[in-house]
Amino acid sequence: MPRKRLRLGLLGTGVAARQLYLPAFRRLRHRIELVACASRRRAKALAYAREAGIPDVESCAEALFERQDLDAVLISLPIDRQPEYVLAALAAGKAVLSEKPIAPSVAAGKRLLAAARRHRRPWLVGENFAFMPHVHRLEQWLRTGRLGALRLVQVAQITLMDRNNPYFGTGWRREPKHVGGFVVDGGVHVAEVVRRCFGMPTRVKALTAAFDPALPPLDTAVAALKFPSGVLGTWTSCYSAPCTGPMLRVFGSHASVELDWGGVTLHEKGRSKRYPTERDSFEAQFDHFADVVLDERPLKYTPEEALDALALVQRIVEARG
Amino acid sequence: MPRKRLRLGLLGTGVAARQLYLPAFRRLRHRIELVACASRRRAKALAYAREAGIPDVESCAEALFERQDLDAVLISLPIDRQPEYVLAALAAGKAVLSEKPIAPSVAAGKRLLAAARRHRRPWLVGENFAFMPHVHRLEQWLRTGRLGALRLVQVAQITLMDRNNPYFGTGWRREPKHVGGFVVDGGVHVAEVVRRCFGMPTRVKALTAAFDPALPPLDTAVAALKFPSGVLGTWTSCYSAPCTGPMLRVFGSHASVELDWGGVTLHEKGRSKRYPTERDSFEAQFDHFADVVLDERPLKYTPEEALDALALVQRIVEARG
Repeated sequence: MPRKRLRLGLLGTGVAARQLYLPAFRRLRHRIELVACASRRRAKALAYAREAGIPDVESCAEALFERQDLDAVLISLPIDRQPEYVLAALAAGKAVLSEKPIAPSVAAGKRLLAAARRHRRPWLVGENFAFMPHVHRLEQWLRTGRLGALRLVQVAQITLMDRNNPYFGTGWRREPKHVGGFVVDGGVHVAEVVRRCFGMPTRVKALTAAFDPALPPLDTAVAALKFPSGVLGTWTSCYSAPCTGPMLRVFGSHASVELDWGGVTLHEKGRSKRYPTERDSFEAQFDHFADVVLDERPLKYTPEEALDALALVQRIVEARG
Repeated sequence: MPRKRLRLGLLGTGVAARQLYLPAFRRLRHRIELVACASRRRAKALAYAREAGIPDVESCAEALFERQDLDAVLISLPIDRQPEYVLAALAAGKAVLSEKPIAPSVAAGKRLLAAARRHRRPWLVGENFAFMPHVHRLEQWLRTGRLGALRLVQVAQITLMDRNNPYFGTGWRREPKHVGGFVVDGGVHVAEVVRRCFGMPTRVKALTAAFDPALPPLDTAVAALKFPSGVLGTWTSCYSAPCTGPMLRVFGSHASVELDWGGVTLHEKGRSKRYPTERDSFEAQFDHFADVVLDERPLKYTPEEALDALALVQRIVEARG
């Protein structure tokens, strides 16, 4: 007997919905049915519906949430608007998958968490890095001592956020109402990896800069970090310089690892071995969400963990001065 | 007419004298004549003299400094002993080339500088990184805006200092009387590059760790840095983890550069170009020293600059907590 399909509605049809979700949805047709979508701009929702093969376009969030043929909604709106819609969807009895970061600030995230606990429906924060198989491989290596005694972690998110980048043009990103601009928006991803591998830092000593006036309120942050195990780290976020390279390096007494979007590379005794990731992280995330909603599986990634990831990177941008 | 040769005496015949100086001296026979050497252990001095083709071995520093057939002495002793011998050699009328760091601490370096100013003979601190042609290339790129507007500098000195490393066995390095152990001893090199490219940092926020008890007083330091231009940086020193990779990266709005011992690599618009160094830095340093002593050329690297390099890295190891 074929498994039941998750009947999903989409609120927000922006860059992420097109570039990141659609390829995953196409591979998950057996598990997820896109039933309806809505956007503040109806023309955008109609275009997305055509591209994604979604039969219905709703005129507003409320209409989407009230549909009785939906199990769940995926909310990808400007960060500062997310909390109110997450709560409205939960209140309407829908399971919710909401884009990262969990909220525009840690304070707003705590309020959202407290309010969301009053509802019984599942809520997953869509942090795709929590679903990367190669991140889990790294976690396992660290847990089993594959690198020897751990010494250092280095974060380096360096990228040129200019008109060639599709996220540059997003209006709410150019006049952000969330904490820390791109440094936080992009930084929560790698903060999630750091958090799950090393825990929350016990010391954060940071400096920030706003080099490019087109990227308010800041585009660069550097920090020295210390973790409960004694491991030290550096953090570099810079959205005003071009770079390719791993976003995370971990150094142990015997070996080191580089992690990027596509996999991990283990450096050991002068040799390097590449382990490409086994599955697209959005596909894994959506598949898990279907398991949670349809089969009542426990969440593999809790909103509390998503709040910690935000807290880690917010602490870096606020430790300035 | 052949140029005059610098008549040089060596005090200290340890790892650096064998592995770093000898190959350079062999290429500089036309410019430098090794006349005599001395070491605390006479057998070691005799062995070195045989290997280097040095005719005379003196029994002590005083005997070496009093020789009338020497223009200059090269002093490479345990860091904490350097200042007294630098001053004694200058007092004996010899020009001096002394190993980096300038002194075992900034305070000791300031005292040494004040005392050395009473003598008229030239004194060069042997910071070979100040004589790397590819470091000068990097300096020029930064000065002429080759990378665009400067954003970030990343220092990463990560290496496993264990029994396979010849410096590990040095007695005075295992029980260091100088500040910061290997982190300072090795760190002054890259501190010199940072200092000459970006100036002295205006902010240093650092954390340190002592992971390996065989490497007292500490083997690891991380820091967030800010420079007068507003450029931010991270600093990582770790002598208890294996790694290969560039020791310095600089990121600008248009391009980035990686620097290692052998050259620089420019990354620009998705392409990479390698610029190998043009000359061994020890050879360039010794050649310059001969120019200074024999031809009264001005010092290209002053003891004041060497003191700044030490101050930069000492500030990192002392900014702990």
